[in-house]
Amino acid sequence: MISGRTEYYAILGNPIEQALSPIIQNAAFEARGRDAVFLGCRVEPGELEQAVQGARALHFSGLAVTMPFKREIIPFLDRISPKAKALDAVNVVAVEDGRYCGYNTDGDGFVQDLRARGISLEGGEVLLFGAGGAGRGIALSLLEAGVKKLYICNLYEYEARGVMEMLEGCGYDGAEYIPFEPEAVRAVCGNVCLIANTTCLGMGERPSPHLDLVPWEDLDREIVFADIVHKPLKTQLLRKAEERGHRIVTGDGMLLHQGILAYRLLTGEEAPERSMREKLDQWLAMEQGG
Amino acid sequence: MISGRTEYYAILGNPIEQALSPIIQNAAFEARGRDAVFLGCRVEPGELEQAVQGARALHFSGLAVTMPFKREIIPFLDRISPKAKALDAVNVVAVEDGRYCGYNTDGDGFVQDLRARGISLEGGEVLLFGAGGAGRGIALSLLEAGVKKLYICNLYEYEARGVMEMLEGCGYDGAEYIPFEPEAVRAVCGNVCLIANTTCLGMGERPSPHLDLVPWEDLDREIVFADIVHKPLKTQLLRKAEERGHRIVTGDGMLLHQGILAYRLLTGEEAPERSMREKLDQWLAMEQGG
Repeated sequence: MISGRTEYYAILGNPIEQALSPIIQNAAFEARGRDAVFLGCRVEPGELEQAVQGARALHFSGLAVTMPFKREIIPFLDRISPKAKALDAVNVVAVEDGRYCGYNTDGDGFVQDLRARGISLEGGEVLLFGAGGAGRGIALSLLEAGVKKLYICNLYEYEARGVMEMLEGCGYDGAEYIPFEPEAVRAVCGNVCLIANTTCLGMGERPSPHLDLVPWEDLDREIVFADIVHKPLKTQLLRKAEERGHRIVTGDGMLLHQGILAYRLLTGEEAPERSMREKLDQWLAMEQGG
Repeated sequence: MISGRTEYYAILGNPIEQALSPIIQNAAFEARGRDAVFLGCRVEPGELEQAVQGARALHFSGLAVTMPFKREIIPFLDRISPKAKALDAVNVVAVEDGRYCGYNTDGDGFVQDLRARGISLEGGEVLLFGAGGAGRGIALSLLEAGVKKLYICNLYEYEARGVMEMLEGCGYDGAEYIPFEPEAVRAVCGNVCLIANTTCLGMGERPSPHLDLVPWEDLDREIVFADIVHKPLKTQLLRKAEERGHRIVTGDGMLLHQGILAYRLLTGEEAPERSMREKLDQWLAMEQGG
């Protein structure tokens, strides 16, 4: 029951109707018996500063940030973590001693999910499709997690170079650009332990051109395939990989683990993982249908 | 379940821990199956503008306002009702076509409650104790409801004169100042149908000096006594009146009817009165104990 003592959290974005955070974070608050509510607030372009200053004046206890504000919010914060700074993007704002502190859990959510599934990354090689916002975060988190070599396959070379520069700035020189061509991809597939899509290819009605870059016949069956797309949960890429006998990692795990990391940052407490998982599964079932 | 589609409302005040609005408005939303949440937000002095502009940027669907911001909020609104303007105080902000419109339901809540109890005011005379914020609103609403003559008994004459000026500005010349003295009160008690306390006298541990102004022995038993204090529900004034055989009106009814009026202004729909009453009773039972 909401009262004058309740804590408020909110995700800011536009659009916001489909935001997952209110759903799973409120389930987490309920499971923990925490007197807190997580809101989803649509903010218009150009009104972000007003919204953030308003959240301060309304004594919100923390924020999540989604498209299109992950970068734009930075000037309105008091401090950002080194990772958020490197990625130039914030998706969680924790209030620490009254100061608004920005974090980025996008890539860490992906890596935490792989860890939770017992997939070993240390010393391995990974092929990533994509060099956008999600790709940047995942690339950095993979290297932090001990991946030795990262092949970034992207349609536009300059985007991949941008990610590599960012990684080098963080002290990681294990990334390499791979053109979006079958031969280039084939050349690196011999050594990788994970192939992951970090783009929106394969989402909804979008095509899956990366599917045709993979030398399916010659792949080691031990290679794991992962996708960050969650609608559909089993993308064409993952369906094909599964048919070929590969282990697959669907996008729901990244969502869950981002949520767990956000809960921890926002509340300072461990997240009730099972309750969040149950609510996420319900939401995904609804979303797949819709 | 809160989602990106949920409507948000909030009461702004300081302190806010004891605010009733979130309790009964959320009960109303639930009873109506409305996808809406009513928050209680503490705002620091000097941060009200930031909070109001923030509420706009966060797409809140309406606000309630309590101490100490009822007057201070006016410059940050797009429009205020004639009554709120006359009272120089706003306690409900409805969003109408994106514009923030201020209303004042304080006095109307009091009068609606009397009406709901079948107490007739038309053409009657009323003795009010107090000329503060609540007294002003109640005085105006009583005259609007057809009260012919209003005696305003107050410790400080200038406050009562201020109320009378406001009333005259609204076209009502039926108010008269009565000194805070037994003889002055006795002189008007012969004709009144209602004696009401609009001050915080009798609240908690506060004294009840107005009790000693009332000529109890000589009063017509038909005179109704009302009090806006709700902790305790039966103030010393009301207990004494009840002992003497008078009908009494406790402060809970005003709270309920303010809430009903606020719900209607904020949502444009009729309020689920029974659900709000039930929740209010629960809250009062808890508050009386605490």
